[in-house]
Amino acid sequence: MAIAFPPRIVCSEKSTIEKAVMVSPSSPVPPVILTQDELKKIAAYKAVEYVESGMVLGLGTGSTAWFAVNRIGELLQQGKLKNIVGIPTSKKTHEQALSLGIPLSDLDKHPVLDLAIDGADEVDPYLNLVKGRGGSLLREKMVEGACRKFVVIVDESKLVDHLGGSGLAMPVEIVPFCWKFTAYRLQRLFEYAGCVAKLRTCGENGEPVVTDNANYIVDLYFKKDIGDLKVASDSILRLAGVVEHGMFLDMATTVIIAGELGVTVKNK
Amino acid sequence: MAIAFPPRIVCSEKSTIEKAVMVSPSSPVPPVILTQDELKKIAAYKAVEYVESGMVLGLGTGSTAWFAVNRIGELLQQGKLKNIVGIPTSKKTHEQALSLGIPLSDLDKHPVLDLAIDGADEVDPYLNLVKGRGGSLLREKMVEGACRKFVVIVDESKLVDHLGGSGLAMPVEIVPFCWKFTAYRLQRLFEYAGCVAKLRTCGENGEPVVTDNANYIVDLYFKKDIGDLKVASDSILRLAGVVEHGMFLDMATTVIIAGELGVTVKNK
Repeated sequence: MAIAFPPRIVCSEKSTIEKAVMVSPSSPVPPVILTQDELKKIAAYKAVEYVESGMVLGLGTGSTAWFAVNRIGELLQQGKLKNIVGIPTSKKTHEQALSLGIPLSDLDKHPVLDLAIDGADEVDPYLNLVKGRGGSLLREKMVEGACRKFVVIVDESKLVDHLGGSGLAMPVEIVPFCWKFTAYRLQRLFEYAGCVAKLRTCGENGEPVVTDNANYIVDLYFKKDIGDLKVASDSILRLAGVVEHGMFLDMATTVIIAGELGVTVKNK
Repeated sequence: MAIAFPPRIVCSEKSTIEKAVMVSPSSPVPPVILTQDELKKIAAYKAVEYVESGMVLGLGTGSTAWFAVNRIGELLQQGKLKNIVGIPTSKKTHEQALSLGIPLSDLDKHPVLDLAIDGADEVDPYLNLVKGRGGSLLREKMVEGACRKFVVIVDESKLVDHLGGSGLAMPVEIVPFCWKFTAYRLQRLFEYAGCVAKLRTCGENGEPVVTDNANYIVDLYFKKDIGDLKVASDSILRLAGVVEHGMFLDMATTVIIAGELGVTVKNK
């Protein structure tokens, strides 16, 4: 995918993100190598510019979203934002937002959100996403599916030609009951794409990771393109035992990509 | 739906089910009024005739399946069936089968079953089903979707022109997280069919019913036909927060219907 870079935000060695200077492509300022965390922070801060006082906000989960939630808390404390209601997408984000004093609610009370900001594990050229390597895909999908605008923040390492293309996990949340059977069926479903399905585990004893909804996660690894994403999505969802998958199709309205050469904003 | 009745099994007043006599439609034996439980038992016993020694069997859940599981246990104890492996579709059936001495296993060890026998809440003319008023729809669908043959046993009160047509519940298993939001979205999805969505509760305090998989159940009530069932199925499954629904489409291979006028066997 060719990305057209707009006038860039480049951070000079001593600058902080807030002091980042807009420079033209011909600027003599030498770009410096930024860490992945710095790139995530740049994208997150840019996304928070979309937040306005009075909004109901979906608060994402993961290392990139963490910066955005932190920034929202900071602006609230400074009085630069007011009357924000946050809807967290995980227990972890709930705790983070609480600690920052962000007023919280849920989808039952606010079934329509103004804006959500969250990271992603993969972004394809059509702004389809893979999410959920952090394990919160179900709540993220519920919240972000209820938003008028969904701003996704990533560093450029998350861009792929096609979903699954990074070779990293595409997660599926499944019920624990007979999980091996469900994992087997998922693998079979994508046999044509060289799929390998693995239960996500943690700890020394390889205990299954348990989601906020008390389910398990099976990670799918593909060797080839899985083809039509909507067909793949429906096929997964039709398997009894599957709760949700990590493909977020036609959901992102804006993707903010922070890279060595600047910040790119892509709109749907 | 017009059902062509084959030569009937009619139980005379004094006969037991095992002594049921095949009579032609012109037989002078007067049909007697049977209770719904007697009809369920007739259908269940007929279904167990499909069971052969050595089979891996899906054991259904609910008042009709209870008779079938009991009968299988009886035949095992009598030595008329041997080497049966049962895969129960609920914790309740697991306990029933254990108490009868039926050897049990699960889908992880037996991903392909020879036969499953289970009841249903509704059967349409194309042998599509509504199941899950007993609350076990997810495990039932997992087990019965893995069977070579799926024999459904019902009394004739379960026959409908179209699914949802009985006016009784079409259940959907959902995650407890923000259940009101999911119930609201389900109701909206079928607004055109006059849908009302209600959380299934129990007890004096109206506590939510919790499934074997620690989820909730939302019952959908329709005033009108919901139309294309596959479209409806996919629409429900696409809602994040939905785990599974109670429509069993293209799954039953045989339906055994016990009615006042005899037993009808319909094959796919």
